[in-house]
Amino acid sequence: MTAREPTCVVLGGGGFLGVNLCRRLAASGARVRAFGRRCLFRQDLAGVEWRQGDFCDTADLASAIATCDTVFHLVHTYMPQSADANMAEDVRQNVISSLALLEISRTLKVRRIVFVSSGGIVYGPTAPVPTPETAATDPISAYGISKLTIEKYLQLYEHHHGLSFRVLRVANPFGPFQMPGKNQGVIAALISCALQNEEFEIWGDGSAIRDYVYVDDVIDGLLLAAADESEQRIFNIGSGQGRDLREVIVEIEAKLGVKLAVRRTERRSIDVPVSVLAIDRARDILGWRPRTPFDVGIEQTVAWWRARAV
Amino acid sequence: MTAREPTCVVLGGGGFLGVNLCRRLAASGARVRAFGRRCLFRQDLAGVEWRQGDFCDTADLASAIATCDTVFHLVHTYMPQSADANMAEDVRQNVISSLALLEISRTLKVRRIVFVSSGGIVYGPTAPVPTPETAATDPISAYGISKLTIEKYLQLYEHHHGLSFRVLRVANPFGPFQMPGKNQGVIAALISCALQNEEFEIWGDGSAIRDYVYVDDVIDGLLLAAADESEQRIFNIGSGQGRDLREVIVEIEAKLGVKLAVRRTERRSIDVPVSVLAIDRARDILGWRPRTPFDVGIEQTVAWWRARAV
Repeated sequence: MTAREPTCVVLGGGGFLGVNLCRRLAASGARVRAFGRRCLFRQDLAGVEWRQGDFCDTADLASAIATCDTVFHLVHTYMPQSADANMAEDVRQNVISSLALLEISRTLKVRRIVFVSSGGIVYGPTAPVPTPETAATDPISAYGISKLTIEKYLQLYEHHHGLSFRVLRVANPFGPFQMPGKNQGVIAALISCALQNEEFEIWGDGSAIRDYVYVDDVIDGLLLAAADESEQRIFNIGSGQGRDLREVIVEIEAKLGVKLAVRRTERRSIDVPVSVLAIDRARDILGWRPRTPFDVGIEQTVAWWRARAV
Repeated sequence: MTAREPTCVVLGGGGFLGVNLCRRLAASGARVRAFGRRCLFRQDLAGVEWRQGDFCDTADLASAIATCDTVFHLVHTYMPQSADANMAEDVRQNVISSLALLEISRTLKVRRIVFVSSGGIVYGPTAPVPTPETAATDPISAYGISKLTIEKYLQLYEHHHGLSFRVLRVANPFGPFQMPGKNQGVIAALISCALQNEEFEIWGDGSAIRDYVYVDDVIDGLLLAAADESEQRIFNIGSGQGRDLREVIVEIEAKLGVKLAVRRTERRSIDVPVSVLAIDRARDILGWRPRTPFDVGIEQTVAWWRARAV
């Protein structure tokens, strides 16, 4: 091992949160490896070692983790909607592969795993609003169940083997490097449609309330979680504020100076009507706070899209 | 389908709880099918259709469930200790096979699934004592995590497809037809050792407190859960009382009139020191109560063992 071998690895490093995290780590001088099936933004990962591989392949995973003491686990091979249609495969690819990750991490004496779970999906529709980490976890989607199950195995590995972890239950993140078209990331989809003069399809009447959090703030949370020495393990990361889709559309229209063409379709049964996270724990324990006002986040996201379109 | 086709199926019908449940169902006039890999007690299942098959084989499972409107799911292919050593395989055999069961049950329009979960293992070491169903579920064993995950998928299938279910989180059941030798069923193991003049090995100093519930009372709970029309889904089933192993040994010695030879070994890290269930919900909602005093249960279990030994 040379002095330049990476000491932290971002699993899912080619995705939305992953690219943002890798860029921040590299900018801070950390030696970082990005691991994933593919990356649309290789040119944006200067100073980052890119390692192509499959999370479900144990050999790929072991080789990606070697030399690293910190593992950011940002992979989920399905989106919420596709997980529901492929529950068994979702378990195989995500839960069972995460078990392999835990075993490898234990063997290689990884210092800390930071796992990105879902703040919008693990709690379920009967949770209080805003939802604290202590709320009951009764997901109404397979995606939420597999995220939750991975959280439980992290707890188990710490209990049995002392493998350290933190879980961030992230609300609805948005910002640069988020791509539309995978039934996730409504803000990216809205901006992309607007820039291409396409019609945008929304589920339901746009009244579903979500907690949109700007990606830079999520990355702050990930870095703080990697260093945290508290007794807590699970942290909500959100803006703490609820917005319905109509407000989001109004804000994007204002920043873009265009009117969006919106078409309504049927609401999905995996959607809860309201999801807003209580973020007191991250604030009190990690010293974290969402620094980016919603309109500023939208402005920066629009700016990123416009720069790409040039 | 003839009028004599079974209308309920007991998955795991060859095991401890399964044999007891099948016998009670048959005695009540129900048409019942027992499904399992093997049954040591075929001669005790008069009036029950025995169907040999593998829970992990979807075709076996579909054929076992056909004609049935009520499914008792009592299968777990690992014991608590062996699940920890085979986590990924535990997930494949139990979680993923239970997903197949749910899909089959939905397709065949099963009326109700009653699932036996673990009252002693799903809650974890920080739960209040006695433990209500609303306590946090942070298992410190893989067995507890897979049981919990199956509970979550049952909730999901009801939410998505209206598939009705009840979960019983059963404490430490004991009674006739429980076999020693699988790191479970300490009472069966103690009686068996005593009758064969063998030394008995206990984990730790015998101070671990458990909630022992007589099997007839568990079967009462299963039948009430199958018929329940309340809004509740998850019920603890236990005696509501804690006993340490020393008390259990004293009671068995008294009933057998012998002194047990006990040897201590190291405590397992998957054991919580105290596990006692709060049983108010089953009492209030199902009208259930544990009818069998502990000493009577031990007496009946000893009588069963003595009758077998003849």
